[in-house]
Amino acid sequence: MDFSFDARTTELVEVLNDFMDDHVLPAEEVFDSQLAALDDRFAWTRTPVVADLQAEARRRGLWNLFLPVGVDPDGIGGGLTNLQYAPLAEISGRSGNLGPAAMNCAAPDTGNMEVLHHFGSPEQKEKWLTPLLEGRIRSGFAMTEPAVASSDATNVETSIVRDGDHYVVNGHKWWTTGAMNPDCAIFIVMGKTDPEASRHRQQSMILVPRDTPGVEVVRPLHVFGYDDHEHGGHAELRFTDVRVPVDHLVGEEGTGFAIAQARLGPGRIHHCMRSIGVAERAVELMCRRVSSRVAFGRPLSQQGVIREWIAESRVEIEQLRLLVLKTAWLMDTVGNRGAHTEIQAIKIATPRVVQRILDRAIQAHGAGGVSQDFPLAMMSAGIRTLRLADGPDEVHKNSLAKAELARHA
Amino acid sequence: MDFSFDARTTELVEVLNDFMDDHVLPAEEVFDSQLAALDDRFAWTRTPVVADLQAEARRRGLWNLFLPVGVDPDGIGGGLTNLQYAPLAEISGRSGNLGPAAMNCAAPDTGNMEVLHHFGSPEQKEKWLTPLLEGRIRSGFAMTEPAVASSDATNVETSIVRDGDHYVVNGHKWWTTGAMNPDCAIFIVMGKTDPEASRHRQQSMILVPRDTPGVEVVRPLHVFGYDDHEHGGHAELRFTDVRVPVDHLVGEEGTGFAIAQARLGPGRIHHCMRSIGVAERAVELMCRRVSSRVAFGRPLSQQGVIREWIAESRVEIEQLRLLVLKTAWLMDTVGNRGAHTEIQAIKIATPRVVQRILDRAIQAHGAGGVSQDFPLAMMSAGIRTLRLADGPDEVHKNSLAKAELARHA
Amino acid sequence: MDFSFDARTTELVEVLNDFMDDHVLPAEEVFDSQLAALDDRFAWTRTPVVADLQAEARRRGLWNLFLPVGVDPDGIGGGLTNLQYAPLAEISGRSGNLGPAAMNCAAPDTGNMEVLHHFGSPEQKEKWLTPLLEGRIRSGFAMTEPAVASSDATNVETSIVRDGDHYVVNGHKWWTTGAMNPDCAIFIVMGKTDPEASRHRQQSMILVPRDTPGVEVVRPLHVFGYDDHEHGGHAELRFTDVRVPVDHLVGEEGTGFAIAQARLGPGRIHHCMRSIGVAERAVELMCRRVSSRVAFGRPLSQQGVIREWIAESRVEIEQLRLLVLKTAWLMDTVGNRGAHTEIQAIKIATPRVVQRILDRAIQAHGAGGVSQDFPLAMMSAGIRTLRLADGPDEVHKNSLAKAELARHA
Amino acid sequence: MDFSFDARTTELVEVLNDFMDDHVLPAEEVFDSQLAALDDRFAWTRTPVVADLQAEARRRGLWNLFLPVGVDPDGIGGGLTNLQYAPLAEISGRSGNLGPAAMNCAAPDTGNMEVLHHFGSPEQKEKWLTPLLEGRIRSGFAMTEPAVASSDATNVETSIVRDGDHYVVNGHKWWTTGAMNPDCAIFIVMGKTDPEASRHRQQSMILVPRDTPGVEVVRPLHVFGYDDHEHGGHAELRFTDVRVPVDHLVGEEGTGFAIAQARLGPGRIHHCMRSIGVAERAVELMCRRVSSRVAFGRPLSQQGVIREWIAESRVEIEQLRLLVLKTAWLMDTVGNRGAHTEIQAIKIATPRVVQRILDRAIQAHGAGGVSQDFPLAMMSAGIRTLRLADGPDEVHKNSLAKAELARHA
Repeated sequence: MDFSFDARTTELVEVLNDFMDDHVLPAEEVFDSQLAALDDRFAWTRTPVVADLQAEARRRGLWNLFLPVGVDPDGIGGGLTNLQYAPLAEISGRSGNLGPAAMNCAAPDTGNMEVLHHFGSPEQKEKWLTPLLEGRIRSGFAMTEPAVASSDATNVETSIVRDGDHYVVNGHKWWTTGAMNPDCAIFIVMGKTDPEASRHRQQSMILVPRDTPGVEVVRPLHVFGYDDHEHGGHAELRFTDVRVPVDHLVGEEGTGFAIAQARLGPGRIHHCMRSIGVAERAVELMCRRVSSRVAFGRPLSQQGVIREWIAESRVEIEQLRLLVLKTAWLMDTVGNRGAHTEIQAIKIATPRVVQRILDRAIQAHGAGGVSQDFPLAMMSAGIRTLRLADGPDEVHKNSLAKAELARHA
Repeated sequence: MDFSFDARTTELVEVLNDFMDDHVLPAEEVFDSQLAALDDRFAWTRTPVVADLQAEARRRGLWNLFLPVGVDPDGIGGGLTNLQYAPLAEISGRSGNLGPAAMNCAAPDTGNMEVLHHFGSPEQKEKWLTPLLEGRIRSGFAMTEPAVASSDATNVETSIVRDGDHYVVNGHKWWTTGAMNPDCAIFIVMGKTDPEASRHRQQSMILVPRDTPGVEVVRPLHVFGYDDHEHGGHAELRFTDVRVPVDHLVGEEGTGFAIAQARLGPGRIHHCMRSIGVAERAVELMCRRVSSRVAFGRPLSQQGVIREWIAESRVEIEQLRLLVLKTAWLMDTVGNRGAHTEIQAIKIATPRVVQRILDRAIQAHGAGGVSQDFPLAMMSAGIRTLRLADGPDEVHKNSLAKAELARHA
Repeated sequence: MDFSFDARTTELVEVLNDFMDDHVLPAEEVFDSQLAALDDRFAWTRTPVVADLQAEARRRGLWNLFLPVGVDPDGIGGGLTNLQYAPLAEISGRSGNLGPAAMNCAAPDTGNMEVLHHFGSPEQKEKWLTPLLEGRIRSGFAMTEPAVASSDATNVETSIVRDGDHYVVNGHKWWTTGAMNPDCAIFIVMGKTDPEASRHRQQSMILVPRDTPGVEVVRPLHVFGYDDHEHGGHAELRFTDVRVPVDHLVGEEGTGFAIAQARLGPGRIHHCMRSIGVAERAVELMCRRVSSRVAFGRPLSQQGVIREWIAESRVEIEQLRLLVLKTAWLMDTVGNRGAHTEIQAIKIATPRVVQRILDRAIQAHGAGGVSQDFPLAMMSAGIRTLRLADGPDEVHKNSLAKAELARHA
Repeated sequence: MDFSFDARTTELVEVLNDFMDDHVLPAEEVFDSQLAALDDRFAWTRTPVVADLQAEARRRGLWNLFLPVGVDPDGIGGGLTNLQYAPLAEISGRSGNLGPAAMNCAAPDTGNMEVLHHFGSPEQKEKWLTPLLEGRIRSGFAMTEPAVASSDATNVETSIVRDGDHYVVNGHKWWTTGAMNPDCAIFIVMGKTDPEASRHRQQSMILVPRDTPGVEVVRPLHVFGYDDHEHGGHAELRFTDVRVPVDHLVGEEGTGFAIAQARLGPGRIHHCMRSIGVAERAVELMCRRVSSRVAFGRPLSQQGVIREWIAESRVEIEQLRLLVLKTAWLMDTVGNRGAHTEIQAIKIATPRVVQRILDRAIQAHGAGGVSQDFPLAMMSAGIRTLRLADGPDEVHKNSLAKAELARHA
């Protein structure tokens, strides 16, 4: 057992820290104003600053690092293990809107690229994976539906019906993140090809270009008042008799559930890694704030209750980070399936703790904390959604407990 | 001891419940679209639906009920005790943007009217209190400052300097709720008339009409992602050499702190009453949602964890409501000062519990819970601010503990 | 609505407070040493100090106050409503071992007397109720069984089989509180007379004198290391072919479940009332302790974190007390059945909050807090059991949620 | 970074697991009855089963493993790093009374042996360390005093005054763990040699044989209701004009605070390691219990709320363990001082989480959970004391926060 980073990680951490300090953090304000100046507030990829940051990231070798070396025979990623990537994802999360995007490591594209990489046909890869890896287009993942509890995949109502050499897609989705951005070119859509099949063989994934007739981007959904246009928003989508050629199916019919599972594991750990970066930034902001504000004759930093918040936050972060790192190591050594329980554990543990840390940081900032003058409220809203994304925590807890009970049976 | 409502309360509860069901709740959607159609998104008082609701509320005798009979010799309020008003405020809080506004019982006007009523000169009352009581204008309260921890009143930096028969106001304020609305005509501004006086005699309150030269409405502040234009937003204000006649001072020089204290007590209980209405609505929405959604073969309402959320919420609400009612009763029987500890207690207890209940309700709604499709996220953001408004909870806990320690000394 | 005590309550509160201050609290140490000097450590009723306290309580009119006037046609109780009795029970709870016992208002005798009073035959009353009311004997309630989850009454395995003019009882019970005391003369035993009847008609209650052949008092159970000999301990009991005359059945066959329900409601509120007295004593001890200990240059009472504990405790207690009082009022006005939800609510809310307050008080006392030098640890162990007694909280939460869901259906 | 155990650890884990399963766990009941048969209930070292277990542990190479190789030039320990020892300590903690004792790795002897090893003179080592290492005697650590808040070392009132070639010790101590055991031969006593010296140079440590005239073992302290005679109890001690030769001073005058600090770091991590073993045992017991109890028609293990408890416990344990392991690794690689923040973090995080897990397990066991029939209540009482031992958590949080604030200054 060894808790030190290897040389490659240490080096990349330094490179990335420099990149964040010199380029990303100073760009936050620029990005906001460039975005505000656009005609389409969701077209964040069209701000000059994003292009500049991406160019700089590529120059520094910080591009597409998310794809783990073990499952990357073509070497299109950065050649890193999950464990090597984890601290980098954390650091990028300190600037949640720009850090991951600059490195082409932002959700949901990372997950979508993984799906195409693992399950896509050569033609699908050429048409969609290549431009995604080059950051030329963006993508969406359309799984959740407004009409049903979508954490239970058998509830999915979208239909994918074969009609000659086409599939016809009909359905109603929402929370397709990034899809309000006009540069979002392709959707991976989950639907049922065979409602009569066994529970986990009914679903399939299919590629639907955003400009296909019958695809309607209905509206942006809000998250605690935010439309999240900084990364393309979250779209409600309607698919009405949408026809795509049969070669648009990802993998074979009936593999949709398996693909979703394969996609969500890495997605969850990436979210957790970045969330820890959010927590670190919150602690940093909190410490600075309380050191500079004076009430009743002394800095807030000398108040015992404030100190308790800081101490608790540090203790919580240290534990979370180690569990996330161990999970990454397990994914590298025994595979995503072998790390199943740990992936669930970090999915359960991380967002709520980071939400609590953010809440403390907000409180320490006074009314400013809930406003646009600090990033805390926006980060809090984003983190809150992670307790629901990819299935509410309660589903995962139930499943984790079942496994634990079985161990002691 | 008797826990039943008196006849007057029971009757008004029925009248108000009918009004809410028949008029206010159905108007929520109408209000949103009328507001969206305005040129000035903050001019909510100019929507036809608000005027209609106010007319209907007056017709039903639901107007200006907030002013307690004990301190209302002129009979301009509804002649109710705090205890009689409390359940009405709760009910109105179920539709937080429209209920209180329809009854002319919305913050910050209620508090400002109380200040004018108790401390205003006859001329000030005629000029500002009368139109406020008639709902013809709106008002703002400018106390908090961005540069200092404003929970400590001695930190206030705004200056009010006598210059002949005028006072000159210079200062920088924020979180003046309602002030983005062009119908907000008058500000009550707290500043220092004598920085050398003793700790609680340095401050004064002064009336500053919004259109006085030197008054700048800088920008709306956001609460999480909401700009709260539904009730006039929260403004950042700058006062630069603003001159108002000396008769604009409220009361005498040096009474600002005392006026603020007198204002905040009733304000806190009103917030708590309405917050309990919010919690009731959250529980209702949660119960309905979980009864109608099915996952893994049964309605969510049959999940033990969901049931626990519902039970906990009910148990919490019942306790909160009783404490708020008792506090109202104390204000009626021993005065606001005698109810000091209880006012602190409800201020501490209510927002965080209601926030927790809202969080459960959001979780029970899945991703929809954080969106604009349900009122939960907006309610949650609003309730969150109450843990900071009128001083962060921590200040009140510290003070309450001091009193408890003294009791056992 | 009125939150003031009536004249009778106010007067009794004063009488009882004097009694506690002058007699009960000073007797605590005496009791411990007299108890230690007994041959049978469980025979607490045989200490002189208990007899003295009981005599004094009778003299002051503080005897058998627990039986509510509304269900006491014979006037054997104190003629108080539940609402009048509640604050008295709280005050007595400040000295948990002696206060209620001095007033003949201690569990489990109160509940057992209620059962005999409501359901007993004239002969049963004469033989058992009269000496109980006079404090001459003690009683036990034998319901819970070690082999099954006893919160589900259908699980009860003890059999009560008619054999001529006798019933034969066979079964295995535990947690029969008070039963280690040799003065405990009679058990009310729950068993099944008809395992084939419908779910809630299988059970009956039967009176079993402790000295009946076949009754075995197996051993005392411990609660966190305490054997609770101060009030007769908690016994494991075995009933082997125990024969009692048929007139020992309480009520009719098949009414056992109903009797249990009728008994547990008042029992729960009494526990809650006394628990609040425990919490008040904990706060008092905590305040005194932190005022007198100095660390790092100032009294602990000036530490922000300690102040937070005190403030939170006060806020929690005030809410709990009001909910308990309202529940008592409901029991008086709409009956125990009408107060069902509220009884569940206080049963859920009270013990855990009081446990938390005790935990804070212990922490504030340093290592002394867990020791025999302060009553905190013993109180904490006792309160902890209330989260399990009469069914674990989880059963009550589930049931309460079902009712809430039905309200919104 | 590597989360796998090295070969030596893996091997020892297996050896120890076998030892626990084959010898220690089966001995628990035997130990209780042998202990009950002794004349002196605190003389646990005189039970045959302890001698047998110790012999077996030595045979298997599981003896004195606590002393880390890095600071053990004489090779008297097991030659393990802290990181190698950590999982072994955890496993031994599953049987808290017997596991560590069997391996001669039980507190407070481990800490005392470390003090003698690092700071003792050759004569002190020969006289006391050697028999301790061989398990022939036991020792006590007398630091905490009843009269003062002992977390602030400057409060210590015990005096150590030089008088010719002797020191005279006067003072009042409590919580000297193990000291009720007649085989406890030696105390390390902290007192002040120079009350006028600077804050952390006033204190010294001195060796006082238990049989020195003037040493009084006053009484055993209880923890909740337990006297902890299973490992020698916790004694209150009085030192009245106790004279020991000057060579009994440990190190030099004025080094007492530094020695205490050096002693407490490793002590804290050992406590945490063993506590995690306690948590694992609690989860195991909980899982078994809920799988075998049926209520309302299904096993408790199918209740959502119970599953949540299990899942939360697992997620919490995994995080705690990793933080403890990392702390051990830091102690190995950068020294105890470099691991200061992490040692504080585990001291804060571990006991309360394990206490919570135990509370869930107790609740899942019903009333049995608080009784002597399961080890849960006793484990809970023991763990509770760790939030107070070596300074209450609040002191550590305050200090940790100061360090965090400094990092961001």
